Amino acid sequence: MNLRASSDGPAPPRPALQFYFDFSSPYAYIASEWVEALAARHGRTVQWQAILLGVTFQKAELKPAVAHPLKREYAMRDFERSAHFAGLPYRQPEVFPIATHNAARVFWWLHDTQGPPAAVAWARAALRAYFTRGVNLSEAAALKDLAIECGLDGDAAQAAWQDEHWKQRLRQVNESAMQQGVFGAPFFIVDGEPFWGNDRQPQIERWLSSGPFLRSSVNP
Amino acid sequence: MNLRASSDGPAPPRPALQFYFDFSSPYAYIASEWVEALAARHGRTVQWQAILLGVTFQKAELKPAVAHPLKREYAMRDFERSAHFAGLPYRQPEVFPIATHNAARVFWWLHDTQGPPAAVAWARAALRAYFTRGVNLSEAAALKDLAIECGLDGDAAQAAWQDEHWKQRLRQVNESAMQQGVFGAPFFIVDGEPFWGNDRQPQIERWLSSGPFLRSSVNP
Repeated sequence: MNLRASSDGPAPPRPALQFYFDFSSPYAYIASEWVEALAARHGRTVQWQAILLGVTFQKAELKPAVAHPLKREYAMRDFERSAHFAGLPYRQPEVFPIATHNAARVFWWLHDTQGPPAAVAWARAALRAYFTRGVNLSEAAALKDLAIECGLDGDAAQAAWQDEHWKQRLRQVNESAMQQGVFGAPFFIVDGEPFWGNDRQPQIERWLSSGPFLRSSVNP
Repeated sequence: MNLRASSDGPAPPRPALQFYFDFSSPYAYIASEWVEALAARHGRTVQWQAILLGVTFQKAELKPAVAHPLKREYAMRDFERSAHFAGLPYRQPEVFPIATHNAARVFWWLHDTQGPPAAVAWARAALRAYFTRGVNLSEAAALKDLAIECGLDGDAAQAAWQDEHWKQRLRQVNESAMQQGVFGAPFFIVDGEPFWGNDRQPQIERWLSSGPFLRSSVNP
């Protein structure tokens, strides 16, 4: 007896979740710690995309939360509280926010030359280093040390972030992200539906488990 | 046999949740529909506070989400999606955002002359009217009609929103809110802890059920 239902073959793989992050975003750090498990619960994979918030902010005419009176004090409290709410360690970096183009170029260099898993391992390590140990990813020496700590060739990493090829690669990713409507981080695109913010986790979970709950999305 | 545990008398009532809202905020509309039930689950009451986002935005150097490129398109989608996620009806008002000082003055007039429950009933009715039927609360005729529909004296309501006394009352509330760090809506203060946004519901729920999860808050 064949216990399997008859079928025309295995189902096609479902689209990966697009996960846009910046190495200087506390909420992206938090989301980076749950996004893989969430996707796995629903038979999905995750495509990590390192972007520069500074670029999307300029396009969307936005500033970091900590650049606004009142909102700054709230945000500095909410970063740590939201991390603890998610069960994660957090230590507010003394230098914040920071420029993250070098860390992001290393991500795309690894992505294209060693494959996505190597890039994701770098992303995790760098986010944790910045948000739990205060490692300043904008400083060349600190970034190179971190690369070495991660088992990478420090000189090759530095050469990569100084290479016009990887600068251009990151510019293209940012441009493409903004064309998809990305204006902040973390930002998720799930089967074409955009979700902004670590706090959209419950909506993403429901979207994946029981389908669209927005009228115009039911038949996309 | 006395089934009650011995005690030195009834426990003192626990502080009310402070709930700040603006009549033109979709996320405040959503939160207004769950805040009472959430508080009740934890033996709390809610103190509703009508404020003007325009005033807090100016202080915090912020603009409405819909005033930003890219973020605008996202927000228009997220308003309705977040309402559906919470199980609520939603229809994007054609005129949005709107000036809400008159609706807010009616709130404080009712609050001070008839008591908080009358003010809360008005808040619920006006939020639902704007976000499910598109009733433009910034138009005097529409606002007066809504007041009458709510069983109020339409002329008295209009007189109230034109009265310097209630203008001043609202100004004082806004000033006091900003002194508490309020810069957006919905905004909650729970035992001194600030929470911004409809999407902080899970954090508020945990804060109320099992206490602070931020180191500096453990012994406030």
